[in-house]
Amino acid sequence: MDHLYEKTIKTTEVYKGKIINLEIQEVELPNGKTGSREIVKHPGAVAVVPVTKEGNIVLVKQFRKALNKTIVEIPAGKLEIGEDPLQSAMRELEEETGYKTENLEFLLSFYTSPGFADELIYLYFTDDLQAGMTNMDDDEFLDVLEVSLEEAERMIKDQTIHDAKTAYAINYLRMKESLQS
Amino acid sequence: MDHLYEKTIKTTEVYKGKIINLEIQEVELPNGKTGSREIVKHPGAVAVVPVTKEGNIVLVKQFRKALNKTIVEIPAGKLEIGEDPLQSAMRELEEETGYKTENLEFLLSFYTSPGFADELIYLYFTDDLQAGMTNMDDDEFLDVLEVSLEEAERMIKDQTIHDAKTAYAINYLRMKESLQS
Repeated sequence: MDHLYEKTIKTTEVYKGKIINLEIQEVELPNGKTGSREIVKHPGAVAVVPVTKEGNIVLVKQFRKALNKTIVEIPAGKLEIGEDPLQSAMRELEEETGYKTENLEFLLSFYTSPGFADELIYLYFTDDLQAGMTNMDDDEFLDVLEVSLEEAERMIKDQTIHDAKTAYAINYLRMKESLQS
Repeated sequence: MDHLYEKTIKTTEVYKGKIINLEIQEVELPNGKTGSREIVKHPGAVAVVPVTKEGNIVLVKQFRKALNKTIVEIPAGKLEIGEDPLQSAMRELEEETGYKTENLEFLLSFYTSPGFADELIYLYFTDDLQAGMTNMDDDEFLDVLEVSLEEAERMIKDQTIHDAKTAYAINYLRMKESLQS
C-alpha cells in the first residue's frame, strides 16, 4: 500500500453539470485522521500547437467566462464522450482555426490542476497545415491569429498569453528551434 | 465593447467550499442567444522551481485525491487570503521541502484551466537553497525527491511526471541550460 494513500470513506455528489461534476470526498489521511477533498470531475481535453509553413504559431483569442476576460490560447477543446484524443485534436483544430491536418504528433499529456480537478490535456504538434473553413460550436466565438515565435514570447512576457498550456507550447517551439539551429 | 464578451445575466452559487466555490452563470452570447457557464472559483496558487547547488531539481511526491493516485510535482500550494505570492512561495517551498531561500525569481504566472476555473499560478525559480526542516499542513503528506534534469526529462517521457506546471518547469530548466552552454 502506498504510504501516502488517502482512502475514500464517503463521496457526496454536489453537482452534475454540462461539462464538470463536483464531488466532496471524505478521506482517511495517512495519519489515521479524516479530511475532506473537493474534487472537480472533467472529461479531459486536447490542445494543438499548430505551426504554419511560414513558421508562425496559430492562436485563438477567446472570451473565458471563468476569468471574465478574453485570453489567447492554442486551439483546444474538451473531449467528447468516447472520443479518441487524436481525432478530437484534429476536429478542434479545424473547428477553431479552419486548418486541417492528417499529421499530428503527440507531445505529452498533463494534468492541469491536480489539487482540485482531474482534467487531463493531450497535447499535439503539427507543422503540416492545410487551409480550410472554421466551424465553431453553437456557444463558441473566437478570433484566430498567427504570430511569430518571437512575438509569442513577447506576449508571454506582457501576459497577453497567460495560459499554462500555451506558455508550455511556446517554450516547446523555442526548444525545438534551438535544437535545429 | 469586446465583440467576444459574454454578459452575465444571472449567477447561481452552487457550492461554497474550503478551497473552491462553484457557480453557474447564465450569459448572453455574442450572437444574442443565452448560454450557461460552469465556473470554479479558486484562490490562486504558487509553485517553485527549486534547483540544488548540484544542479538537481527538487520535486515532491504527493497523493492527489482528484486523480486518486500519487503524482510528482514541483513544490506548490494555494494562496492564503491576502497573502503575497512571493511570501507564499517561500513558505510553501520550506513547508514542503525543508529548503529555505531569500532569493526567488518570478518567472511568470499562468491560468491552469481557463475553460472552467479561474486558478492562477505564480511560478518562481531559485538555485539558492539553504537546508532546513519540513513543516507540512495538518492534512498534507508528501515525499521529497531530488533528480537531475535528464532524469526529470525521462520522468516526463514515462509520465511519472504528469503535471503541467512541472513539465513547464523542466522545459524551462532545459532552455536555461542550453542558453548557458
